[in-house]
Amino acid sequence: MGRVTVRRPVRMVRTQGVRSRPDALAVEEPLELRVGGHPLAVTMRTPGHDVDLARGFLLSEGVVGARGDIAVARYCDSVDEAGRNTYNVLDVLLADGVPAPDVGVERNFYTTSSCGVCGKAALDAVRLRGRFDVSASELAVTTGVLAGLPDTLREHQRVFDSTGGLHAAALFDSDGTLLVVREDVGRHNAVDKVLGWALEHDRVPLSGAGLLLSGRASFELVQKAAMAGIPLVAAVSAPSSLAVDLAEERGVTLVGFLRGAEMNLYTGDRVREPAPADDTR
Amino acid sequence: MGRVTVRRPVRMVRTQGVRSRPDALAVEEPLELRVGGHPLAVTMRTPGHDVDLARGFLLSEGVVGARGDIAVARYCDSVDEAGRNTYNVLDVLLADGVPAPDVGVERNFYTTSSCGVCGKAALDAVRLRGRFDVSASELAVTTGVLAGLPDTLREHQRVFDSTGGLHAAALFDSDGTLLVVREDVGRHNAVDKVLGWALEHDRVPLSGAGLLLSGRASFELVQKAAMAGIPLVAAVSAPSSLAVDLAEERGVTLVGFLRGAEMNLYTGDRVREPAPADDTR
Repeated sequence: MGRVTVRRPVRMVRTQGVRSRPDALAVEEPLELRVGGHPLAVTMRTPGHDVDLARGFLLSEGVVGARGDIAVARYCDSVDEAGRNTYNVLDVLLADGVPAPDVGVERNFYTTSSCGVCGKAALDAVRLRGRFDVSASELAVTTGVLAGLPDTLREHQRVFDSTGGLHAAALFDSDGTLLVVREDVGRHNAVDKVLGWALEHDRVPLSGAGLLLSGRASFELVQKAAMAGIPLVAAVSAPSSLAVDLAEERGVTLVGFLRGAEMNLYTGDRVREPAPADDTR
Repeated sequence: MGRVTVRRPVRMVRTQGVRSRPDALAVEEPLELRVGGHPLAVTMRTPGHDVDLARGFLLSEGVVGARGDIAVARYCDSVDEAGRNTYNVLDVLLADGVPAPDVGVERNFYTTSSCGVCGKAALDAVRLRGRFDVSASELAVTTGVLAGLPDTLREHQRVFDSTGGLHAAALFDSDGTLLVVREDVGRHNAVDKVLGWALEHDRVPLSGAGLLLSGRASFELVQKAAMAGIPLVAAVSAPSSLAVDLAEERGVTLVGFLRGAEMNLYTGDRVREPAPADDTR
């Protein structure tokens, strides 16, 4: 692929003066995802790990739940003006017996009743029914392990270092070992890419792993974790109200503002707090 | 509305110890947007300025181009389990003669040809045709004016201060005066809210204004600016490759990494750089 970063000319205004030089930018390109040849969605993403992105997207949308639910995923023969394959259209063939998603009636778009009728059904539809129950998980993580995660993540954020323009997501175990790290211009894509990796490696449901986010925790990201069976989400920045609500409802432990040894615990009981006597570092 | 922040209990792990207390969270709730009674989209947003959000969304999707294109916008009678209006469903009635958007064939969802055929048409569809030409604008801004914008924006980010969880967008003029500031858990929503404000105040096309972003500049945010006729976008963080490409194509001046007196100029010539002799501050 080799398209994770590109160099573009830029005028850099600095206190010492202005100079022109090439600068690295994070690549953003559309990926069209098709299922069985039928277009399902277009996402603006950083190229690379596209098949994992597709797998994770379908997992977190509830279309697939295991590695065997996907028969094959491949790039289509889409070409640009020069006749080169764009690698921007991906087709997934589901295994026999796996129902295809309803194309065109995606959950964000309805053709329901007219205004005046209760909108609750439509709004409830943003909540997906999960196939995994995270409450059975025995995962527990100490604050000491959590404290080390942001620095470990940063060491793996190679593209962020050169562009400052990417979100990162990672899976980690109870020892704080990172299982996989992915970067993307879209934080949803970064999460889908790590979930897709897990699906391909037969690790779903991810009952023994936590999801680490380089930014904020929104409703949709907590929902993706729950759909993959992940019992703990740790975000470097703030959670939203609905992210906390959903985490509470699904039994997901939610950690926010993870800044080294300091962090906020919003829901769940999977974090082993420091004993009062040794809580300084 | 009064639902911009909520307080939730949180366990705060600090180097001095652990304590429980209520903490402010940015509210995230779904807003269902309908046009003429037909559901069009659901966005996860921070409540408040919802009508502006709807106006800005329709403007940046190319459905409307002027204040008079919208006849009326009102909340539907959607109720929660307790029978209270959720204020989460909004219906917009377009003026006579304004074509309604194709519901269900949103540009992210296609029912086109099968895999193997060129996907270029679908991918081109993410680029919207604008009704305004920004190249005629005479807007020019000095680096000195730009340098002051992030601090001015932060002074207006009241919700961010209490939650750390919101993006902000603002419109500013060539003197650096902020015309409007909006905060939201979604950065697209923050931009739509300022664009909707401008539409309601008959300021579209915004040929004399710049768009200020508290975060990164993605393709979609630059596209929203172009759709509203804004000739300059200044982002506190990094732009993506496609954001730069689109800005170049549409004649939008794009400033990134705006950090006080230092900034990067990616496209356009609307920024008056400091003279070599007085470029220190």
